[in-house]
Amino acid sequence: MATQVIVLNGGSSSGKSGIARCLQHLLPDPWLALGTDTFVAAIPAAMQSSEGGIEFGDDGRVSVGVEFRALEAAWIRGVAAMGRAGARVIVDEVFLGGAASQQRWLTALDGLGVLWVGVRCDRAVAAEREVARGDRVRGMAVAQAELVHQGVSYDLEVDTTHAESMECARIIAERVG
Amino acid sequence: MATQVIVLNGGSSSGKSGIARCLQHLLPDPWLALGTDTFVAAIPAAMQSSEGGIEFGDDGRVSVGVEFRALEAAWIRGVAAMGRAGARVIVDEVFLGGAASQQRWLTALDGLGVLWVGVRCDRAVAAEREVARGDRVRGMAVAQAELVHQGVSYDLEVDTTHAESMECARIIAERVG
Amino acid sequence: MATQVIVLNGGSSSGKSGIARCLQHLLPDPWLALGTDTFVAAIPAAMQSSEGGIEFGDDGRVSVGVEFRALEAAWIRGVAAMGRAGARVIVDEVFLGGAASQQRWLTALDGLGVLWVGVRCDRAVAAEREVARGDRVRGMAVAQAELVHQGVSYDLEVDTTHAESMECARIIAERVG
Amino acid sequence: MATQVIVLNGGSSSGKSGIARCLQHLLPDPWLALGTDTFVAAIPAAMQSSEGGIEFGDDGRVSVGVEFRALEAAWIRGVAAMGRAGARVIVDEVFLGGAASQQRWLTALDGLGVLWVGVRCDRAVAAEREVARGDRVRGMAVAQAELVHQGVSYDLEVDTTHAESMECARIIAERVG
Repeated sequence: MATQVIVLNGGSSSGKSGIARCLQHLLPDPWLALGTDTFVAAIPAAMQSSEGGIEFGDDGRVSVGVEFRALEAAWIRGVAAMGRAGARVIVDEVFLGGAASQQRWLTALDGLGVLWVGVRCDRAVAAEREVARGDRVRGMAVAQAELVHQGVSYDLEVDTTHAESMECARIIAERVG
Repeated sequence: MATQVIVLNGGSSSGKSGIARCLQHLLPDPWLALGTDTFVAAIPAAMQSSEGGIEFGDDGRVSVGVEFRALEAAWIRGVAAMGRAGARVIVDEVFLGGAASQQRWLTALDGLGVLWVGVRCDRAVAAEREVARGDRVRGMAVAQAELVHQGVSYDLEVDTTHAESMECARIIAERVG
Repeated sequence: MATQVIVLNGGSSSGKSGIARCLQHLLPDPWLALGTDTFVAAIPAAMQSSEGGIEFGDDGRVSVGVEFRALEAAWIRGVAAMGRAGARVIVDEVFLGGAASQQRWLTALDGLGVLWVGVRCDRAVAAEREVARGDRVRGMAVAQAELVHQGVSYDLEVDTTHAESMECARIIAERVG
Repeated sequence: MATQVIVLNGGSSSGKSGIARCLQHLLPDPWLALGTDTFVAAIPAAMQSSEGGIEFGDDGRVSVGVEFRALEAAWIRGVAAMGRAGARVIVDEVFLGGAASQQRWLTALDGLGVLWVGVRCDRAVAAEREVARGDRVRGMAVAQAELVHQGVSYDLEVDTTHAESMECARIIAERVG
């Protein structure tokens, strides 16, 4: 089946967004790039620090509440609907719930051609890139580096520890059907 | 019917995004805020200056190509699907095609409770706000001020020329069922 | 004496940066626009939440430490030196220390033609604009609205409560010698 | 002499800003980080595409006019004055004029302890990082990769082609007196 959705899953500062932009550059057809950052920018400011929302702790851990989950479920179904309506979509995600997070996307994307890609990065390297970026809550890279991959199944894994975003994107692009 | 989607339509620098954030603040339930800016950030960089994409001319006019329209159609259906999946959604739009643009959303949102809101702003005032913002291509405010409202039907219109974003949001919030 | 430096002082979300960009647009000569935001972006990330740095409290109040003051003193002298080297400079400032803050700039700018401008905004309106902007810590507008003007002397005051940035900029531009 | 100013010179997307943030993280004293991006953000919007200003061509080349040079000269003297007033400063620069650009800084920084650092990156790698970043005019990385180093003398050179920002910062930090 032709690939209609590419799901990139990895921790903060693992390099997902850079890979997504490189994929948009490499792939001959136009692909939408959407993800966790898009979704978090769309929720109410108050939800980013409320009990029903998302919480960025001082240690970089992220916790997520009931209302957040409800909006997120609708978001996921909407992104899947874009794929069903003919758009090719790169989803740039952080599976904080590991296998349970993947299951939510699996269910929503049922019937679509999906390429599941794990984006790994050594936690120490990701932590240093977090410092270099300067625009992220410190500690998220370390907290998420292994957590987001627990129990998740992939078609393909890339590792940005020693490879550029474009190199990883080329490997992924070759697998796009 | 309860309002599930609020569509804010207005030209660049008319104040739509500020109103959307104020609505998220005022309304008791959590609402997603998505719109043209979200969509344009999601398309490939190359489409922003290609024949199949969107083009920001030196005079601030925006033209839109075939591939852009195809992705946009899928985007619109996806946003509608978020509403059908239970999310309340504020859509912050620029109807460059006037009535034809509205028709695309009307078709996609069929069956949902929609509040159509026109966001007006005097073109000279919008042009000056564009200068004050400093992050927009100059000339878009003037080029779009009346264009985006041609042939569009609203439940409600607000005018930011002499009213704050929050005041406009209060008027809209009172009409949300 | 010809105006070489324009100091805009006002609380968060009072509209200083918009006025600065409008002044750059209106004034026939090229003016640099620098200010508190430039300086805060230049200090180490760790100083933004350390005892020696700047602290954004949950209530929007800002406290400032010893190391911050030392860097700031050097920054102020550097900006003054740009003026002495021939650049026209708009300084967009938040006098958290009121008269004491102004004194620091007065000393540094000695001998230069300075236009001191107070940028006022009703605290309730500024608080609502803070919500509409969506990119500022909530509560700063209210905490700073009157605080920053205490004991400060101006050549000119503008009030953005009912006036656009460009209108305020025109009033200021007329006073630039 | 103790190092008071670190000048990082390299082409667009060579990784200077990331190294600057890592240096701020590593060095025990607080350092200001200022540079070309700070300066360009401070000049009038109109100068970014006028004959007297800076011009980003479609091919990523940057040309610079007379008024820009005058403001820049004042900027450089102001940054030097910050160093003389006791601030430690990291300058993140793009020497479009090669040796002539360095001479401007050499003159202004006379008497201060300066560490001159060349930040190299293979042009093909920098070009791919430019795509991954997605926020820069395409072509600047290639146009500037060698140009900015022509005739420039360094105390130290780092190469980000195969090294992380933090690794490069560690090498530089060891040389800071």
